[in-house]
Amino acid sequence: GTVTTSGKDLVIDTDSGIKVKTLDKSASFQLGGRIQWDYDATQSDDNGVDTTDFDVRRARLYAKGHFGDWAYKTQFNVAESDGAKGGTAEDLYIRYLGFGSTATVTIGKQKEPFGLEQLTSSKDISALERSAMTERYTPGRSGGIQLSGKGSNWTYGIGYFEADGNGSDDFNNTAVTARGTFAPIQTNNLVAHLGAGYTTRDADTQAEEVDTFNLELAGASGPFHAQAEYFDSEEGQVDVDGYYVQLGWIITGESRPYKAGAFKRVKPASPKGAWEVVARFEDGDGKYSDVGLATTDGEQTTLGVNYYANKNVRLGMSYMDGEEANGASGDEVRARLQYAF
Amino acid sequence: GTVTTSGKDLVIDTDSGIKVKTLDKSASFQLGGRIQWDYDATQSDDNGVDTTDFDVRRARLYAKGHFGDWAYKTQFNVAESDGAKGGTAEDLYIRYLGFGSTATVTIGKQKEPFGLEQLTSSKDISALERSAMTERYTPGRSGGIQLSGKGSNWTYGIGYFEADGNGSDDFNNTAVTARGTFAPIQTNNLVAHLGAGYTTRDADTQAEEVDTFNLELAGASGPFHAQAEYFDSEEGQVDVDGYYVQLGWIITGESRPYKAGAFKRVKPASPKGAWEVVARFEDGDGKYSDVGLATTDGEQTTLGVNYYANKNVRLGMSYMDGEEANGASGDEVRARLQYAF
Amino acid sequence: GTVTTSGKDLVIDTDSGIKVKTLDKSASFQLGGRIQWDYDATQSDDNGVDTTDFDVRRARLYAKGHFGDWAYKTQFNVAESDGAKGGTAEDLYIRYLGFGSTATVTIGKQKEPFGLEQLTSSKDISALERSAMTERYTPGRSGGIQLSGKGSNWTYGIGYFEADGNGSDDFNNTAVTARGTFAPIQTNNLVAHLGAGYTTRDADTQAEEVDTFNLELAGASGPFHAQAEYFDSEEGQVDVDGYYVQLGWIITGESRPYKAGAFKRVKPASPKGAWEVVARFEDGDGKYSDVGLATTDGEQTTLGVNYYANKNVRLGMSYMDGEEANGASGDEVRARLQYAF
Repeated sequence: GTVTTSGKDLVIDTDSGIKVKTLDKSASFQLGGRIQWDYDATQSDDNGVDTTDFDVRRARLYAKGHFGDWAYKTQFNVAESDGAKGGTAEDLYIRYLGFGSTATVTIGKQKEPFGLEQLTSSKDISALERSAMTERYTPGRSGGIQLSGKGSNWTYGIGYFEADGNGSDDFNNTAVTARGTFAPIQTNNLVAHLGAGYTTRDADTQAEEVDTFNLELAGASGPFHAQAEYFDSEEGQVDVDGYYVQLGWIITGESRPYKAGAFKRVKPASPKGAWEVVARFEDGDGKYSDVGLATTDGEQTTLGVNYYANKNVRLGMSYMDGEEANGASGDEVRARLQYAF
Repeated sequence: GTVTTSGKDLVIDTDSGIKVKTLDKSASFQLGGRIQWDYDATQSDDNGVDTTDFDVRRARLYAKGHFGDWAYKTQFNVAESDGAKGGTAEDLYIRYLGFGSTATVTIGKQKEPFGLEQLTSSKDISALERSAMTERYTPGRSGGIQLSGKGSNWTYGIGYFEADGNGSDDFNNTAVTARGTFAPIQTNNLVAHLGAGYTTRDADTQAEEVDTFNLELAGASGPFHAQAEYFDSEEGQVDVDGYYVQLGWIITGESRPYKAGAFKRVKPASPKGAWEVVARFEDGDGKYSDVGLATTDGEQTTLGVNYYANKNVRLGMSYMDGEEANGASGDEVRARLQYAF
Repeated sequence: GTVTTSGKDLVIDTDSGIKVKTLDKSASFQLGGRIQWDYDATQSDDNGVDTTDFDVRRARLYAKGHFGDWAYKTQFNVAESDGAKGGTAEDLYIRYLGFGSTATVTIGKQKEPFGLEQLTSSKDISALERSAMTERYTPGRSGGIQLSGKGSNWTYGIGYFEADGNGSDDFNNTAVTARGTFAPIQTNNLVAHLGAGYTTRDADTQAEEVDTFNLELAGASGPFHAQAEYFDSEEGQVDVDGYYVQLGWIITGESRPYKAGAFKRVKPASPKGAWEVVARFEDGDGKYSDVGLATTDGEQTTLGVNYYANKNVRLGMSYMDGEEANGASGDEVRARLQYAF
């Protein structure tokens, strides 16, 4: 039978999830999600226990769309790594597009604009888990209002957020967070990226107030890519800092895609898929929980290999080895099967 | 490429969410939802604390559809105002349409047929929050079985419900609830609406049994609309009652839509959107929790202004001021951004 | 207006939920779910309490699809019978199809391959609730990895699973589970099915380790169908066993569909629907919780009648009567309205 619409001409795609949009792009609706299933084995001096786990790392569904100048996204967890967080919300926002792409207003739960690795989707990061620096210093998702925009080779975002998530009296603890990026070189094969971010976060007592500064430096040249971030934070009277450096090589020759101030995951050029190796080193005050260590001064090395079977499916393995400044060490072997639809 | 169907001819629409139906209307499937993001500041004599909040008020997704004589709806919370209710169900029912529109049978979790303001969707009410009277006297959603129907200018519903929601021995506490409405005048520009409802609710002890009677009076004339409800309830040996009166004016000239015994939200006639002002006064025994007061005798005034950007997006602000009979007072300022898809 | 796609030609169906696939079957996306709303009244000697309940039994939504050689399914509970499990995951897996239908690899949360009645969907079983034997001996869904396959008249599955579901150290308790089926006769009107399963499950102490063996025998001849299963389990030092036998007759003449080692629910041939009666007897060590009895030695009889209004809607009633070996008895009357979309 025929399929028609009573309104404007529609275009449907189902390569990942389903996307319906009007031909004139004035309205759209899209459904999708991700499943990440992990095996992980961690052993650590700190807790003295070896754990192995086989469990879902993330399972999310989202619906998003727009009509005229207004867009929305609602994304929720079907399950989370600890097995207890089904039914919680991730992104949950409404966006105003009427000022054009240089000035977008987003209201609701969203990622604060801070940290290159944090703002790279968990579907798209090269190592399976983010660095101990990103875990420590970046705020991730909060409720708030953000003004953001982008040009051909720059982006910015500045927002006012609740610092403590939900609660009946949120405005005791608020945050102002901002980030800007600039890509002096940006072709299909060659990318140079510079970024900086700043977040200042209120707290109940002055000793808990946090100001963090971030520098991003990244680039891609043919099949190679590199990215580094430095964080410097004043947590009350205490100064902490740390950095990571990450290098990746896509053996099958593809380039890592870069778009609007963040990297995307590799799309294989061949039906046989694409292979990538990645190495990351980090040093400083970080949150070394992935290898069972404390939030303290230390260093960590991560080695990983990824196979991108097609644009939706990724298999990855990583080995992380960390050491606290006091000498305690821990490591983790992780394997992941990921379907992003 | 082409898009076809292996069955009956289909029509797709994506103005809000996505709707697929057969051309002969014998089957349909629809996805949609709502996001309401609120700022609210409440100060009250009763609890002596001023609170401000910036949080999701409601985030819901639904799937509904029908095949032949049978329909269903499943709607769930992605998040709720208290931040703790993700993953709970709102509507969750199966419906039999085979007797025609004058006798529909609905089984499952649904709104009990009681209260004009309660039966107006939270997406469509003129003030941002329902009245203290609706909060106190109307049962909202329960599991049960309902017979309902409608003609050109009348509706009715009568049902048998669990009074206490979930649980393993629900039939200790059941309710019978009924409502009828009649619209002697019903044109695009002129509406007169009369309604009455009754609910009788069992409890473990006779002192907790509740019988409530409700009267509805509403109308619209061009850009003006008015609605009032009176509730009288016998809660054990105690008699309580209260009423609200609400007036609205759509400055840009649209009329408030009325359909099957309830009002819908304003659809702007111009791409510039529609503006509405609303005022509500209520007096009597109510649940004055929005302004931080008790469930007691009092009065409350609400002033609001709404901007309907398009048929999906609404921005609203309201000011509520309440006073208990004992003199304690409280007020609330609320702003909302809503996307209904 | 027109509906087209920017990629391969698409086919859409909306008979139940929505299904979009490419004409060449290289990609698909599907949404659906189920609502089961139950009335049930249980009285039992064991707990001395009569309970009646009117509540949702299962409400689930799923998204599934494939792209090339990779498929996924994510299914979650909108609500569950105890009213507390919204937001939890049922199926949550990624599947590799590249070896063909004789060797499929499934990773994630899925049903372990064990038990004919367990592997028959709760939408499709003839009696409303599964037998006390299936409740006791079959593991249901676990996280794991399975290799499975099927030919024209045989199926197999073998997998390695976490025995204890979620948790940070799952590999203390793992299980290996396998099943094979063979259908020597398999036409539209005549089916003979043989199956066997085995599961061995680790535990913290040897006394809790479980090894269970299962035999399946089933068949259909015209409107009649029969199925029986025998379970024998070594739970630590204790040997327990039990069986059930079930007979069904589709009065309106349809045959019960059989596909890939399991039965499906009746699809009515007439717009007037189909009627089915079913009887089940079971004896042995089982989990007699449906009739309010213990997990112990006993016997139970189930009588049921089903009306399949169309391919999506089913109404059913059942009466179950159980007796423990020690003489305590209990029964349950259950009525269900089910919509599978």
